[in-house]
Amino acid sequence: MKQINIGILGLGTVGTGIAKMLLENADLITARLGARLVLKKAADIDLEKDRGIRFDHGVLTADALSVINDPEIDIVLEMIGGETIAKEFIVQAINNGKHIVTANKALLASSGNDLFQLAAKKGVTIAFEPSVGGCMPIIKTIRESLAGNRIGSVSGILNGTCNYILSKITNEGVSFEDALAEAQKEGFAEADPTLDIEGLDTAHKLAIISAIAFGTKINLKDIYVEGISRVTAMDIAFADQCGYRIKLLAITKQNGDAVEARIHPTMIPFTNPLSNVNGSLNAVTLTGDAVGEMMLYGHGAGMMPTASAAVSDIMDIARDMLFGARTRVPMLSFQMENIRQLPIQPIDDICTYYYVRFSAIDQPGVLSKISGILGEHNISIKSVHQYEQKLNGTVPIFMLTHQAREAEIQKALEKISAMDTIMNSPTLIRIEGEL
Amino acid sequence: MKQINIGILGLGTVGTGIAKMLLENADLITARLGARLVLKKAADIDLEKDRGIRFDHGVLTADALSVINDPEIDIVLEMIGGETIAKEFIVQAINNGKHIVTANKALLASSGNDLFQLAAKKGVTIAFEPSVGGCMPIIKTIRESLAGNRIGSVSGILNGTCNYILSKITNEGVSFEDALAEAQKEGFAEADPTLDIEGLDTAHKLAIISAIAFGTKINLKDIYVEGISRVTAMDIAFADQCGYRIKLLAITKQNGDAVEARIHPTMIPFTNPLSNVNGSLNAVTLTGDAVGEMMLYGHGAGMMPTASAAVSDIMDIARDMLFGARTRVPMLSFQMENIRQLPIQPIDDICTYYYVRFSAIDQPGVLSKISGILGEHNISIKSVHQYEQKLNGTVPIFMLTHQAREAEIQKALEKISAMDTIMNSPTLIRIEGEL
Repeated sequence: MKQINIGILGLGTVGTGIAKMLLENADLITARLGARLVLKKAADIDLEKDRGIRFDHGVLTADALSVINDPEIDIVLEMIGGETIAKEFIVQAINNGKHIVTANKALLASSGNDLFQLAAKKGVTIAFEPSVGGCMPIIKTIRESLAGNRIGSVSGILNGTCNYILSKITNEGVSFEDALAEAQKEGFAEADPTLDIEGLDTAHKLAIISAIAFGTKINLKDIYVEGISRVTAMDIAFADQCGYRIKLLAITKQNGDAVEARIHPTMIPFTNPLSNVNGSLNAVTLTGDAVGEMMLYGHGAGMMPTASAAVSDIMDIARDMLFGARTRVPMLSFQMENIRQLPIQPIDDICTYYYVRFSAIDQPGVLSKISGILGEHNISIKSVHQYEQKLNGTVPIFMLTHQAREAEIQKALEKISAMDTIMNSPTLIRIEGEL
Repeated sequence: MKQINIGILGLGTVGTGIAKMLLENADLITARLGARLVLKKAADIDLEKDRGIRFDHGVLTADALSVINDPEIDIVLEMIGGETIAKEFIVQAINNGKHIVTANKALLASSGNDLFQLAAKKGVTIAFEPSVGGCMPIIKTIRESLAGNRIGSVSGILNGTCNYILSKITNEGVSFEDALAEAQKEGFAEADPTLDIEGLDTAHKLAIISAIAFGTKINLKDIYVEGISRVTAMDIAFADQCGYRIKLLAITKQNGDAVEARIHPTMIPFTNPLSNVNGSLNAVTLTGDAVGEMMLYGHGAGMMPTASAAVSDIMDIARDMLFGARTRVPMLSFQMENIRQLPIQPIDDICTYYYVRFSAIDQPGVLSKISGILGEHNISIKSVHQYEQKLNGTVPIFMLTHQAREAEIQKALEKISAMDTIMNSPTLIRIEGEL
């Protein structure tokens, strides 16, 4: 029976999960694949740690280069993360003719264009299903199942930490700070949760999705990113009254020869299936000209769900190898020569519905003045809600608008902020899908 | 540029959708595939009908054999349906060395084992993503994305007509008959809806799913099938009170060396994401030892969603052809020599939770007698609800049980039915997932 040799770089959570799966499910994998996947080497700086795995003699090593340079290893799994040494290792492994499987979204978002180019030149594959959405087959679905579709949009809840926090505030009315503390206690959030809660982790994933959905180069820097740290229990409660949930959504759409790509807290109606995705779970909806709307839902992170995606990628590459095929499915969904450079629209140019909330001193004429300013900017109000309850001497006023241009609403909010009767800066939350 | 030639048998709804997609999205498909898919011939008995497609000269034909016997055609799409002529055509096309894409779940459920065997012998592929779940990539997800997982269970809402009817009763409290009439008026249900509402269409799909999930032969005849025609608005309302929705679920699980495969109206808790799948939409949850639970959701039928799945299959076969690979992913998920014949457990042997409802004459001792009979059969009651309201002189009593064996509950219900104080036959609905 044919044998394909695997090397793992980095035995952190996901690397360890992959090793476990390759060893524990070896018979099952062989029964499906018709060949054996053999974990030949696994490198990590910590060789003492008990990972609950019995590695064969000689598999564990502290020397990553002994994996990359092993002529018998066919596929290298880069499970180190980060953008420094991981990149060097990947480049060297590609130059040695190895196929790569990686979960490194940060690296692909920043250096993917070069890496995929290099891989194509060397005739090897970089597979990256585990980099986006854990076990959900987002990459495979876009690249293969929707291959005949003109994809319209992809919207997703792609960060479990943020979704856990927002679900907690929604269901228990706690503050953002308390929800974050709970997420850290339960192990859903890192000690430094900035990458998650400020939306950058989601942006790395969206940069990859947007590229393969629309056949454009990976472009992280032009994605608009706004995290969840300013979302309050009050806004969530007001949203609920109007039939909406607030989620950190990653949104990408094709608009003619440009692309929308943005991440921000988003109000979505209860009828949107993403509104029911709670806790640390992830989900993504895709629209295509033939499929209409479809959704994938599952564990977007964690040891075994992410390992599952990596093993699926390994098996895909192995199947190619067994038949002498090279990168049978183009890495970025389109043939290299057909990948364009579509610009990402500046956030100022997007048109959507808005929720805005003001803290106003309760005196006559305030509402009229706010409405007047919005009117000057062609923003028409769908509904207004003012409450009697006072918070620090102010009353909350919130409004839902009809569709408006972002630049206009920003200018209007600036003017409204400058009013003597408005305290604090106004809150703005974008809405997807009018009720 | 390389060219791969396609022939379609049957220009009904799905066949027409495929032709449309191949023609309208030709440039996009080429940009992804790196080769051209050419619709060389399309056969239908009705050549006069306006399908809104401009076929090239010579493509349309009334002669199916001219498609099957065309030496230039690489892939034949069987979109005729049924188990007679469609089977003959497929066999002949395979014998001519053509690859097959089919949406014919009835045929695969009944004759799939032989057809896949023949295809393997001839070195061609039978692809069948469009046969199950419309646009949802159920087959690809089980076969490729979960390839390293030991799959535990697959549960799905796989028939849009049934889900439309049940959603209608749930949301509007109408009767089954009215909901069915509405489904027919809106085009969701056939004039003869038996295949849908009695669960047989779902059974065809489950037979296929169960085989590829667990590596066993396709076995339609041992699947337990119970349709939705006996579900009442009253049961749906009672279920709602207890935190459950009623859905027609297709359920398959591996239990050691046997498989559960059953279709019946099922109560699932609101927390189960399938409970939120409404209208004609379909969804399927899959559990694997690595991925935990994941879900796919989308249009399970209809012209373009089903065509999308077929085009994805065509492109998969085309990619194999471009690289000289043959059936790179085994058709039934496992290598042919590893496919076993796991028995399907008789329904009598399953253990689950139950909802039972009785129409009882309101007199002392009835409840005690019912409980006594259940107790004799080791069925322990979780909750009992009796209502004062009388229907035709009887009161409804419903109960939720703890886990029990089907054979025992059936025996108990038989005894309870025989009581003088019990009118009509009792209603039994199985529950998945205790609250």
